[in-house]
Amino acid sequence: MNITFCCTNTDPGPWLAGLRTAFPQADITVWQSGAPPADYAVVWAPPQQLFDEQPQLRGIFNIGAGVDALLKLRLPPSAVVVRLEDAGMAVQMAEYVCQGVIRHFRDLTAYAEDVRAGRWTSYTPRQRSDFPVGVMGLGVLGARVAQALQQFEFPVNGWSRTPKRLPGVRGFTGAAQFHDFLASSRVLVNLLPLTPDTANILNQETLGSLQPGGYVINVARGAHLVDEDLLALLDSGHLAGALLDVFRTEPLPADHPFWRHPKITITPHTSARTLRSESIAQIAGKIAAMQRGEAVTRIVDVGRGY
Amino acid sequence: MNITFCCTNTDPGPWLAGLRTAFPQADITVWQSGAPPADYAVVWAPPQQLFDEQPQLRGIFNIGAGVDALLKLRLPPSAVVVRLEDAGMAVQMAEYVCQGVIRHFRDLTAYAEDVRAGRWTSYTPRQRSDFPVGVMGLGVLGARVAQALQQFEFPVNGWSRTPKRLPGVRGFTGAAQFHDFLASSRVLVNLLPLTPDTANILNQETLGSLQPGGYVINVARGAHLVDEDLLALLDSGHLAGALLDVFRTEPLPADHPFWRHPKITITPHTSARTLRSESIAQIAGKIAAMQRGEAVTRIVDVGRGY
Repeated sequence: MNITFCCTNTDPGPWLAGLRTAFPQADITVWQSGAPPADYAVVWAPPQQLFDEQPQLRGIFNIGAGVDALLKLRLPPSAVVVRLEDAGMAVQMAEYVCQGVIRHFRDLTAYAEDVRAGRWTSYTPRQRSDFPVGVMGLGVLGARVAQALQQFEFPVNGWSRTPKRLPGVRGFTGAAQFHDFLASSRVLVNLLPLTPDTANILNQETLGSLQPGGYVINVARGAHLVDEDLLALLDSGHLAGALLDVFRTEPLPADHPFWRHPKITITPHTSARTLRSESIAQIAGKIAAMQRGEAVTRIVDVGRGY
Repeated sequence: MNITFCCTNTDPGPWLAGLRTAFPQADITVWQSGAPPADYAVVWAPPQQLFDEQPQLRGIFNIGAGVDALLKLRLPPSAVVVRLEDAGMAVQMAEYVCQGVIRHFRDLTAYAEDVRAGRWTSYTPRQRSDFPVGVMGLGVLGARVAQALQQFEFPVNGWSRTPKRLPGVRGFTGAAQFHDFLASSRVLVNLLPLTPDTANILNQETLGSLQPGGYVINVARGAHLVDEDLLALLDSGHLAGALLDVFRTEPLPADHPFWRHPKITITPHTSARTLRSESIAQIAGKIAAMQRGEAVTRIVDVGRGY
């Protein structure tokens, strides 16, 4: 068996070591042009050339949660594309989103600014019932986020392409109920996969449909958001703020207004990181299953885009 | 029936209106010296004089979670002292503590500083198993905090004076197990009542017993913490940081080193605020029960101090 590894911005050493421990007999190397034919590829943002040279690949394992970059390439038709299961990302996403919602709801960013200025202040507590949170995308990550938010007694709405029932979550489905979902939400959390259908889905019209004083949390992909529309709605006062972890160009260019906007908090794509040891164990388990001819979970529907 | 209201730093208007709605026949007024004898007092940080002039009081309702300030006064022996039930404080405490733990664990304060400096950075994710959180005090607030932290998969230890069993929480009891509790915890959350036994409980010896790189969250009372001992342990590097919401003197004096210490985050006693409408409903319900001669819950054991 031959496994090729091609992950941009990732130290290959520990990944190769982990996979070699799982498969001591296999050839496991970092991909380079002209490499011998591999059975499986473990990738993050690989070049087209890899797939052009390796049409025999049986499985392509993506080590991030989103496969949008991968699916822009021409992939070998015989290969299945496999996403990670949770691999520790869902709890990270729940952490990130909850702290974002809490800090906004509890004025903790304002208090922090006051403390920096040496001011001891007090704001009137807000009503939890005035802060329904809408979660867009109810896959593994979205479902976990929706569950975690309920712990803090926020009303939670969920929107998904196909009907999903989650305990305690008011569900909305498809294009027909999208406006109702937005109009019922004051905080919006985007966890959708990026597909042609969802690109630019956070725009003037949709964000303008949120309840006044809305707050936007984007932890999916930068291309979901029309940057200028967000800025216009913050300036008009319809939106109160935004927490953004993902951007159209990453790192975010130094001259981008998001860096210094007083109502925008940014983080450098850190909401849910791929955890190496859990991911290696998962990928190794799936490769072993495929070698035995068994089915594996989380195969991407390439036509659907996730 | 006569109810007197005496709450420092609180607008009496909405409280009086709420209590009058509940008891249209009663005399309900703001306390002043020489006021007629009352059956019940609703108080926060009242003067000794109130109790000296009102020895006939049957019930004293404290509108904050802690009764330590009240119990320093000489109270009418015939009166029961009643604390609030949760009244929306437990969820606030869970929010505050969770966001504090998450921001430390996930390096979100460091990322925020990097963003302010225009830097796009990446820190190696920490292992959740390396961050056991110890909760001191397992009353209504502590139990809720311990439960909320488990949602984010942190190992949770709990310490209480008497044995408490909470699902998923490793329990430690009394003085005999205090050191083991501290040595098993890396993050320490203080939710103890302030009593003669617990004053100064966060000191050089106890905080020094936390696992290296410890993080301290004090949301109980400033007098639990020996300020200089915290500073020394931060300077020595044994502690990585602290999140403090309560202080020996509030507002925190302008020259106090906590305002600007790079490893300390402070907030102005905002971790759990008394929510008016829930508290009024609760106090009114208990007064009505006492009028009917029924027992009420959350009566303070004055000898024990909470």
